[in-house]
Amino acid sequence: MTQFDNVSVVKKANVYFDGKCISHTVMFPDGSKKTVGVIFPSNLTFNTGLPELMEINAGVCKVKLAGEKDWKTYKAGESFSVPGNTSFDIETVELLDYVCHFITESTCCAG
Amino acid sequence: MTQFDNVSVVKKANVYFDGKCISHTVMFPDGSKKTVGVIFPSNLTFNTGLPELMEINAGVCKVKLAGEKDWKTYKAGESFSVPGNTSFDIETVELLDYVCHFITESTCCAG
Repeated sequence: MTQFDNVSVVKKANVYFDGKCISHTVMFPDGSKKTVGVIFPSNLTFNTGLPELMEINAGVCKVKLAGEKDWKTYKAGESFSVPGNTSFDIETVELLDYVCHFITESTCCAG
Repeated sequence: MTQFDNVSVVKKANVYFDGKCISHTVMFPDGSKKTVGVIFPSNLTFNTGLPELMEINAGVCKVKLAGEKDWKTYKAGESFSVPGNTSFDIETVELLDYVCHFITESTCCAG
């Protein structure tokens, strides 16, 4: 799936870390939310509110979740999960293209 | 209007000029297309295919259309039009947040 259908898109970009991360917010009919964005080469720490699933469209990144010792590498076609109310470090050496899925009850885990 | 409703969004970003311009493509039920994006501080020349209406959400830019002598300044809340199959120079000194409306018969000028 290369696109999201039947959604709303906020016109104005989200700008984080002085522009190192740029995203646009996409809202779904079920009330859930995702962002589509890029991260420029950098070393950043993101804080999470909701749990997130980070889907990598292009590029590669190294990620270390708060409390973990090891960095893991993720590339295009892969994804990683981050719990809510925590943080993760991410290192990119080329442009990273991603979709961030914010996980709510409506989008997660029936049963 | 701060968002577009009932649209499709391409997950992967468009990256132009080595990342100086980042956008995401939004497609409308009538077949028309817009991009939502940002331009980092730079001096760039964009070529147009379809005519475009550039709507500025945030920031300020100076623009010179091909064949014109004078630069004009546009800021948040303003917009400028560019004919099809031409080019324009744009200078930004802060992050420019924009919506680019691609003008087709279905989106333009009844009668």
